[in-house]
Amino acid sequence: MSLVLQTAAMHLGSARIDDLGYAAALLTTAAYVPQLVRVLRLRSARDISLPTFLMFAIGVFFWLLYGLYTGSRPIIASNSVTLVLAVSIVVLKLRYDRNSMREIVP
Amino acid sequence: MSLVLQTAAMHLGSARIDDLGYAAALLTTAAYVPQLVRVLRLRSARDISLPTFLMFAIGVFFWLLYGLYTGSRPIIASNSVTLVLAVSIVVLKLRYDRNSMREIVP
Repeated sequence: MSLVLQTAAMHLGSARIDDLGYAAALLTTAAYVPQLVRVLRLRSARDISLPTFLMFAIGVFFWLLYGLYTGSRPIIASNSVTLVLAVSIVVLKLRYDRNSMREIVP
Repeated sequence: MSLVLQTAAMHLGSARIDDLGYAAALLTTAAYVPQLVRVLRLRSARDISLPTFLMFAIGVFFWLLYGLYTGSRPIIASNSVTLVLAVSIVVLKLRYDRNSMREIVP
């Protein structure tokens, strides 16, 4: 499996492998835009897990530090944007959950 | 900023930088466990964005290919697990959304 992929990688060329990395970074970063839009539109984040987005935001911050230490521009760029999106979702989750609790317990 | 971090990186040592990468990978992967548990427990994924988790799953699959091509074990390991978690959330989202539509339109 590994040998097949390494042969394929030689065929693919390192520029193409970099492109694959950039495509991956673009997808995993842009993915959080529709989630943010959905939470804003529904004014609800009930089904969203707070521990998930807290852990994710801390993890993305660590990736950002890792990118800064290793000097990897794609890691720095994608994780800066993802961090802003993840923190925004955490803030909205806390706000909307508090609002919905007020409705139940006035 | 970059110079300060590069000096800090020299002080930190490459083993510590690797540890930072592993910690980042562990956090961004493990983060999806509470989200999966929450969706299963609530039997609802209404507030979860389908485009987000579809794009995210494709992005993670690309990261996995990138890891396989470049032979990076941490990228392979973390993205294999994340892919399983992200696809599970997509499947549950589709199932629960269909069920909730049946309740409204019998």
